[in-house]
Amino acid sequence: MSLEIKSRIWIEKDGQTLLGHGRVQLLAAIEATGSLSAAAKSISLSYKKAWRLLDEMNTTAATPLVVTSVGGKDGGGAQLTEAGTQIVASFNHIRSECDKLLDQLSKQLPPA
Amino acid sequence: MSLEIKSRIWIEKDGQTLLGHGRVQLLAAIEATGSLSAAAKSISLSYKKAWRLLDEMNTTAATPLVVTSVGGKDGGGAQLTEAGTQIVASFNHIRSECDKLLDQLSKQLPPA
Repeated sequence: MSLEIKSRIWIEKDGQTLLGHGRVQLLAAIEATGSLSAAAKSISLSYKKAWRLLDEMNTTAATPLVVTSVGGKDGGGAQLTEAGTQIVASFNHIRSECDKLLDQLSKQLPPA
Repeated sequence: MSLEIKSRIWIEKDGQTLLGHGRVQLLAAIEATGSLSAAAKSISLSYKKAWRLLDEMNTTAATPLVVTSVGGKDGGGAQLTEAGTQIVASFNHIRSECDKLLDQLSKQLPPA
């Protein structure tokens, strides 16, 4: 009965996707778990896919967003860099500002 | 070098897409040409696809967004209803307000 405004937001650098909803989810999971494999598992992503996404992000960004260390009993760790933390915060800020605006505008929609 | 915020916006009704960028393009082309086939041609859409999109919009909306008339020397005409004109205007307003916000926010993005 009522209309809903939906949106998708992503950040590009030179026409390449740097960050979007799924990538931010992966970064948040890395922050929470401290490991790429645990992060991938926690958001039901294959390790291969998670690794590819991370590699794309790190290659696209001027400064890597995540640093990984190999080995150790848990098979290596992964941590957000300062640049990673900053861009995730920016993305979440944009997402929330945009949601606020669309929420306001949805009240002005005609009945349809 | 510089980051760009990209977005896609669409309007749903009961979980069904009512309007998005492509559909608004089709409606604008119908308004400009007065015919579904001419509209489809002008935006490089097959008639079949345009017809399907229009049928989905008209079925999803409470009031049809376009009325078509069969026959005549140009093979029938198509015109936006008041509901159609209104929802297109709303969509364009949302799009432009969102663009303004994202443009502002993109200036606050960290260098990356």
